[in-house]
Amino acid sequence: MKKNLLKIQALKIHKKKKGKIEISPKIKVSAKNLKLLYTPGVAEVAREIAKNPKKVLDYTNKGNLVAILTDGSRTLGVGDTFPEASLPVMEGKALMLKKLAGVDAFPICLNTKKKEEIIRTLEILSPNFSVFNLEDIASPKSLEIREELERRNFVVFHDDEQGTAIVVLAALISALKVVGKKLEKIKVCLGGAGTAGYGVFKILVSARVKNLVVFDKKGIIYRWRKGDNKYQREIARFSNPENIKGGKREAIFNSDVFIGLTGVKNLLSAEDVRLMKPYPIIFALSNPEPEIYPEEIEKVTRKYIFASGRSDFKNQINNLLVFPGVLKGLLKVKRKLDLNLQIKIAKSIANLVKKPTKDYIVPSPFDKRLVNTIYTCISK
Amino acid sequence: MKKNLLKIQALKIHKKKKGKIEISPKIKVSAKNLKLLYTPGVAEVAREIAKNPKKVLDYTNKGNLVAILTDGSRTLGVGDTFPEASLPVMEGKALMLKKLAGVDAFPICLNTKKKEEIIRTLEILSPNFSVFNLEDIASPKSLEIREELERRNFVVFHDDEQGTAIVVLAALISALKVVGKKLEKIKVCLGGAGTAGYGVFKILVSARVKNLVVFDKKGIIYRWRKGDNKYQREIARFSNPENIKGGKREAIFNSDVFIGLTGVKNLLSAEDVRLMKPYPIIFALSNPEPEIYPEEIEKVTRKYIFASGRSDFKNQINNLLVFPGVLKGLLKVKRKLDLNLQIKIAKSIANLVKKPTKDYIVPSPFDKRLVNTIYTCISK
Repeated sequence: MKKNLLKIQALKIHKKKKGKIEISPKIKVSAKNLKLLYTPGVAEVAREIAKNPKKVLDYTNKGNLVAILTDGSRTLGVGDTFPEASLPVMEGKALMLKKLAGVDAFPICLNTKKKEEIIRTLEILSPNFSVFNLEDIASPKSLEIREELERRNFVVFHDDEQGTAIVVLAALISALKVVGKKLEKIKVCLGGAGTAGYGVFKILVSARVKNLVVFDKKGIIYRWRKGDNKYQREIARFSNPENIKGGKREAIFNSDVFIGLTGVKNLLSAEDVRLMKPYPIIFALSNPEPEIYPEEIEKVTRKYIFASGRSDFKNQINNLLVFPGVLKGLLKVKRKLDLNLQIKIAKSIANLVKKPTKDYIVPSPFDKRLVNTIYTCISK
Repeated sequence: MKKNLLKIQALKIHKKKKGKIEISPKIKVSAKNLKLLYTPGVAEVAREIAKNPKKVLDYTNKGNLVAILTDGSRTLGVGDTFPEASLPVMEGKALMLKKLAGVDAFPICLNTKKKEEIIRTLEILSPNFSVFNLEDIASPKSLEIREELERRNFVVFHDDEQGTAIVVLAALISALKVVGKKLEKIKVCLGGAGTAGYGVFKILVSARVKNLVVFDKKGIIYRWRKGDNKYQREIARFSNPENIKGGKREAIFNSDVFIGLTGVKNLLSAEDVRLMKPYPIIFALSNPEPEIYPEEIEKVTRKYIFASGRSDFKNQINNLLVFPGVLKGLLKVKRKLDLNLQIKIAKSIANLVKKPTKDYIVPSPFDKRLVNTIYTCISK
């Protein structure tokens, strides 16, 4: 689809009903049951919860309610902007969450960019939600917020970090089957060390990828590089075994897999692909504009696997495959999503693709097995 | 209905579906329109809003969205308690708002009781909502918050203060027709000087009630009474023309109308009613337990008008008659609800009752004319 047409159609469908979600009754109100749903009956329910606040889960929608939160500092397709600009994106998440997993989600775009104030606001909002889903917050603030929320025993899902990590590992497991390589033996070049890059780094290292080289705007991340934050220093410590230095080309040289989470469109050219090993796996995941398109890869080879984050290409590696099932699961178990569980979920998603091919390494987001597979992984 | 049965049934209906509201899609999602509603298309919408944040009203649900806010400090039937206990009450408001006015509302129970922090949180949440509806916050904090939000140009509706004021004045206009008295000539005894009491005081004085005596826990409010807050001092300045002192009995003596907003059940006895002028009008509005029941009044006289806040009695004087239409109107005009507008709305509600009788002084909350009458009042 031409970009201009996509824009016109997207604006039109959003304008038609002014947004994508609404608040609806779960119960039919009548003159007869009004006294139960409203005053005086509802006061009895309030008294019951005042005696034991945990009962709020029995008598309200809180138990099925996720807050989808952003500060607009890394808004899809825009970057750091007004929180309002993130609202259609957050509504989209809520829309898909209800459709795919039956989970209620309410989008909240916060009018502050300050970490401490964001965390305090979530504490203030905590009586209303069971799970907090962080979205589109700039790195490393996003990682710091997720860590701090876990420390305070929030049930939190960091979609860009953890959701991306899970779906990338799932896709990689499938893709490696197609090309006949093993996780432990490959070299992975990972572009981007922001929220998603850090998440993918963590899961790949935990899943025993031995040779991982990560680069960001400053080049390859190596030990004792100057000016790095604690997350980049952690990457340096647990990746790049030969401690090589250089830029994108040095990083991609001889790699089996390229994973792009850079936010830079057209970052990769045919020349870069030529540096990779035969049968390259290329996940160009920047959204909405990937680091490279298949036509550029085909200047070099026809034997390759390509995946992107877009819903209008084959092999959509999108958090959309992950977050509905994960949030449904977290609502159930109400605990931390640790790395072992992330890997377990990734494997279960890969298992859904019985015979992976070049064009089919992950299930469609509409695959009805996805949500329940992930939900079962978490709740068992 | 026996209280115990009411409780059992209320708990049961709330537990059945775990609450009363949910988040629903406004658009049917398909594999075909996913690219418009989700990535990549939604990024075009985000870009459009990033260029002009006001466009958020065109492309999201914000324009139809009200935040229903409380800190749980004056929870219906409980008082000052955990914010969670207020959630079923707030869900009830959202339920009725959608049913009666088609307005989307999201309940937020805040985990802080501090005025400054509540105001700051609402600022942080402001990108998501067009109107802020305050509920069940203790006085005078509730009044201070409403004033401060108006100062900061929030579109705010203070249900307990302004909604109560409007419906009380509407009911009083009708009731006076039944008993054949005039607003300018009556004596009104108002019990309670909290949020609702202050709101009713303001509207009655603005509507030219000349003889109004207000009492609270400390007795009649008079000029230079010690220890009063600024709202009580305002009441002292503009009511009680003879500056009488004393308690409930001195206040109610010789009055034509009693309005109870005290939160004290069975505050009034037949002895108190006996002190009133003939054909008394008694609005016992404390919820869920009124200050007096009709059987007690009937020990004194059969010529009286009784109204309460309960949906299981005749003459329900409940904000429910007011807030759906007001919020729909405020979403449209996005401005302050001043006292003149409050009086205009009250008169328009009273006008809906063409032939008021002892048992019919206000429309039923399900009267289909209500919302549009109020909406027209505000938007014209």
